[in-house]
Amino acid sequence: MRMDASAIDFEAVQQAARTINGIAHRTPVMTCSAIDEVAGRRVFFKCENFQKVGAFKFRGAVNAVNRLSADEAANGVLTHSSGNHAQALALAARRRGIPAFIVMPSTAPSVKRAAVEGYGAEVIVCEPTLVARESTANEVKARTGATFIHPYDNDHVIAGQGTAMLELFEQVAGLGAALDSVVTPVGGGGLLGGTCLATHGVDPSIRVFAGEPVGADDAARSFAAGTLIPQTKPNTIADGLLTSLGQRNWTIIRQHVEDVVTVSDDEIISAMRLLWERAKLLVEPSSAVALAAVLNDRFRQHNDLHSVGVILSGGNVDLNRLPWLSNS
Amino acid sequence: MRMDASAIDFEAVQQAARTINGIAHRTPVMTCSAIDEVAGRRVFFKCENFQKVGAFKFRGAVNAVNRLSADEAANGVLTHSSGNHAQALALAARRRGIPAFIVMPSTAPSVKRAAVEGYGAEVIVCEPTLVARESTANEVKARTGATFIHPYDNDHVIAGQGTAMLELFEQVAGLGAALDSVVTPVGGGGLLGGTCLATHGVDPSIRVFAGEPVGADDAARSFAAGTLIPQTKPNTIADGLLTSLGQRNWTIIRQHVEDVVTVSDDEIISAMRLLWERAKLLVEPSSAVALAAVLNDRFRQHNDLHSVGVILSGGNVDLNRLPWLSNS
Repeated sequence: MRMDASAIDFEAVQQAARTINGIAHRTPVMTCSAIDEVAGRRVFFKCENFQKVGAFKFRGAVNAVNRLSADEAANGVLTHSSGNHAQALALAARRRGIPAFIVMPSTAPSVKRAAVEGYGAEVIVCEPTLVARESTANEVKARTGATFIHPYDNDHVIAGQGTAMLELFEQVAGLGAALDSVVTPVGGGGLLGGTCLATHGVDPSIRVFAGEPVGADDAARSFAAGTLIPQTKPNTIADGLLTSLGQRNWTIIRQHVEDVVTVSDDEIISAMRLLWERAKLLVEPSSAVALAAVLNDRFRQHNDLHSVGVILSGGNVDLNRLPWLSNS
Repeated sequence: MRMDASAIDFEAVQQAARTINGIAHRTPVMTCSAIDEVAGRRVFFKCENFQKVGAFKFRGAVNAVNRLSADEAANGVLTHSSGNHAQALALAARRRGIPAFIVMPSTAPSVKRAAVEGYGAEVIVCEPTLVARESTANEVKARTGATFIHPYDNDHVIAGQGTAMLELFEQVAGLGAALDSVVTPVGGGGLLGGTCLATHGVDPSIRVFAGEPVGADDAARSFAAGTLIPQTKPNTIADGLLTSLGQRNWTIIRQHVEDVVTVSDDEIISAMRLLWERAKLLVEPSSAVALAAVLNDRFRQHNDLHSVGVILSGGNVDLNRLPWLSNS
């Protein structure tokens, strides 16, 4: 099912919020005075590390799965991913009681495969190339009739991801505060795209920023060039942000985002450690990218921003390999 | 200021709740379906790792500091501790605008000293012996007139710690659920003592358990013997639970606690890792002791318990030395 580009708007995010209500967690919002001090402003963290499957991806997956017609759903859903989207789609499918088929490269860690299988999905292993991945997905589709759910270049996924920011606005208002700016990490752009729609649907004057690793800076380069420039040879510790920006997301982002702040892996690790040590928030490196952007001079120059909403995207980190432990 | 033993009761906990309201965080309650599955029942975690200074100790410290008369307060407060109570008392004193004097052994890590000084307290270093610690504290008291606030053998501290469980009952009720049992770790017994008063003040039929490291099992041995047996030569990874049970707490605990479940360091590390990996809750080893108790066969035998409240006591862990990393 492919939607017209104009069909994805604030209303789609609001509808997604109703769809995922009671299925996805309404994750908590946390603040940390020590981090506020370092940032020089108030920072409200939307803690998607506490979301089901440990990442915001569950929102988009539930929305996409639950929008399928009964006939479509009967054949199940399909994706290629070895990351959080794979687990999210597997769990969303199990909740609806339909099959999920996940194409994974043979190089994916066995623990990731086990996690997806633990949610009841069928894993189909392929060679670790783009060609093999797509041909395998096509074979599975032909065999099963399953609906392909792209990790980020899908309107229902984008709308679902936007619900995190929608909740954050409600929750911050409930604390008697208001955001003047928001920051998310950007990889494929599903979270950022949904955030744009949610934010400017709530209040067009709220300013939207993205944080991106220097080693996977296609969004920043696209933004500077005014045209979509695909990512080649990404290299960053933020392993959730290696993908190229999706076309649908780029269309949204170029209209709504004020700036894309790039940060080094050292800045990412430093922000991650700050979140662990001072806020006790266990997040993965990709999550720390948004805080790293807030702490970067390029964002610091905005003296008129006093209250920033930051989405902590997930907490799926290998506890045997922490980036600040050189011997791990 | 010494209170009569009869003065510490449920009302003292309720009064403490009013005293700390707006000063200490009302920390979130978290659940994790993966852990529920492992435990074979619902587990509600009261997340004191998100408390100010990263531990429940702030509750007792605020209550003790804020109960001082203006005259008493003017001379400040004093304690000997190198742990969470030191930071908690330092911050509680700063909030009231009074001096804090913290006696610390020369062997205390410099990072702990820096943390206490960061909250504006004066650190007085002594030799790492009990005799030196007490004589130094007496010297400081004579010089300053400061009020000594014991880390756990103090009625206001005990009442303050009880507020965590009082909040948990309210929060679980707000979720439409009810606890039939509660578990906390036990070291000096301040948290457990306060929990007893809070729990049986709310509902005398709710069953109270404690988790204790095998390597520091004075509470379990005291419980079995029916008389207080001091801890000697403790040896456990749960470094917040090395102290002997306080007399005041023992008096409360022996009346209210159903059982003290001892757990090995391996069980503690395993429970800690479960909390980090599945619930994304960054807790210190002492915090994991209560969950380790819930997962121990001695607790598992209680098939009639369906809904257990567990206090996660704190999150101050050395991120360079994680217990499951043998090379760290």
